[in-house]
Amino acid sequence: MDIQEKIASIDWHREPYGLYEPIAYTMVAGGKRVRPQLAMIACDLFGGDAQHIAPAAMALEVFHNFTLLHDDVMDHALVRRGRPTVHVKWNENTAILSGDQMLIEAYKLLSGVPAEYLPKVLSMFNKMATEICEGQQYDVDFETQERVAIEDYLKMIRLKTAVLLATALQMGAYIAGANDEQQNSLYQLGINIGLAFQIQDDILDVWGDPATFGKAIGGDISCNKKTFVLLTAMEMASEEDRRKLQTWMECLLEDNVDKIAAVTHIYNNIGVRTVCEKVVEEYTTAALAILDSLPQNSATNQLRQLVEKLHKRNV
Amino acid sequence: MDIQEKIASIDWHREPYGLYEPIAYTMVAGGKRVRPQLAMIACDLFGGDAQHIAPAAMALEVFHNFTLLHDDVMDHALVRRGRPTVHVKWNENTAILSGDQMLIEAYKLLSGVPAEYLPKVLSMFNKMATEICEGQQYDVDFETQERVAIEDYLKMIRLKTAVLLATALQMGAYIAGANDEQQNSLYQLGINIGLAFQIQDDILDVWGDPATFGKAIGGDISCNKKTFVLLTAMEMASEEDRRKLQTWMECLLEDNVDKIAAVTHIYNNIGVRTVCEKVVEEYTTAALAILDSLPQNSATNQLRQLVEKLHKRNV
Repeated sequence: MDIQEKIASIDWHREPYGLYEPIAYTMVAGGKRVRPQLAMIACDLFGGDAQHIAPAAMALEVFHNFTLLHDDVMDHALVRRGRPTVHVKWNENTAILSGDQMLIEAYKLLSGVPAEYLPKVLSMFNKMATEICEGQQYDVDFETQERVAIEDYLKMIRLKTAVLLATALQMGAYIAGANDEQQNSLYQLGINIGLAFQIQDDILDVWGDPATFGKAIGGDISCNKKTFVLLTAMEMASEEDRRKLQTWMECLLEDNVDKIAAVTHIYNNIGVRTVCEKVVEEYTTAALAILDSLPQNSATNQLRQLVEKLHKRNV
Repeated sequence: MDIQEKIASIDWHREPYGLYEPIAYTMVAGGKRVRPQLAMIACDLFGGDAQHIAPAAMALEVFHNFTLLHDDVMDHALVRRGRPTVHVKWNENTAILSGDQMLIEAYKLLSGVPAEYLPKVLSMFNKMATEICEGQQYDVDFETQERVAIEDYLKMIRLKTAVLLATALQMGAYIAGANDEQQNSLYQLGINIGLAFQIQDDILDVWGDPATFGKAIGGDISCNKKTFVLLTAMEMASEEDRRKLQTWMECLLEDNVDKIAAVTHIYNNIGVRTVCEKVVEEYTTAALAILDSLPQNSATNQLRQLVEKLHKRNV
């Protein structure tokens, strides 16, 4: 079963159009559909029935897009996947209400898993959804917090990014009848992939290739975001460099060219890139080690390729 | 079991506080807890186990409060239950994110019903939640629509207000083992109660006693809301009165004293109050007729009292 096609085949053109067109607009934009793919592959890995996991896989994708929609409102983001965000194209109220409906649609899709799996799948989904809201709240809290410990940052990105990948993998394994230990391995695999992915994202924001990176380089620096790169740099920096970073991170400028250049120069001076890349490497290695411990088949290979592709990505 | 106490006993003081304190603030404010009470009574009516319906009853109340929270953001409402709304006390982003979490909490509570009931209960809940979002969208659409048919208005309030009461009653009946016909009767009872309630609300906005009515009299007139009273008046009015109403309903004023007096005068002139009260009477009679057709016990009596209390209410 092609889960991408299945997601694309959901007909969102329903009445009232004011509610559903923004959902259609959001869902058609696509993205990589990584989460439903992870659920499908994990189910396949343990010989499960693709029909059983498909409703949950679709629910995870709709849920993920719901979080993007509401996050974009909260961040006042103007562009998503190269197109105006929903609150820009329509308005903020539409983005709130259509987002709410997407969250409900995720639960509607989820309820399509066979009844015997429903209690556990629902409970996994609820736990994950809660953690993502909590992660988003920590992210918001960090903005006004003077010092953020690296440990707290890792907790935040685990909640905000990694648990969704982890839950996708665990759900696939569960529905395929994998035992608790196997489910836990898949969950940990997802956590490692998610942490590697997010830290790689923080690195690419500074050193990514403008020609291939989807977003503008230095976006996190411009808005003083406390990324893994910044927090690590602050820990490694000399007293002087730390003061300089601190000063830059208190400015909000119209034109950020000089700021991005200066902060990147300090980062390079400190040598923080290598340290961050090593951390990504460690999470990737941990993910690959988990994969080695699992039954080896085409699904494990697919996951291995995915982990390596995410690791080597420059977009 | 006292469902009010059970709702009050949920501990919302969790970390991150930025996410959960607004939920605690919203849930402690109370309100009449009509929806969970309806679910409990309906379950009791058919001899069901209160423990089985309680999680769903609480879910309905949390869901209802979620809709109020997001509606208040969309309406830019400043006050709810005599206190500043969440987006005023905190900010809009907080209201969006804590609201999202409340919707997820509703599903978490719902998943506490015994597993054998879960698929059906979840599907009832999803249908209801979807209809409420659709009702809210129609309500928004009506604002910019020049003409709204009374039939469409009734459809909107059925979705936005009545289906939640109807679903509460149906769920209670279902979990108590009532058959499809009985469940359907309870659902229709809820629809009738809901429609009567909302139209009564529209009437009280014009002719309520300022001393006892919770909100300012004439709020709907001030903001040109297309209520059942206005739509009925427009149908009944002479050409001249209709033009006058139209003109008033195109004004947005700082001071609405004259406007409220003038529009109320036209309403009185047309005699629309009696007609609207008759419609409330009809829905109430229909509700009581359904109650008469059900097994007669203390639960039926409680529902009868509730219907009569809602009908005679002036607050």
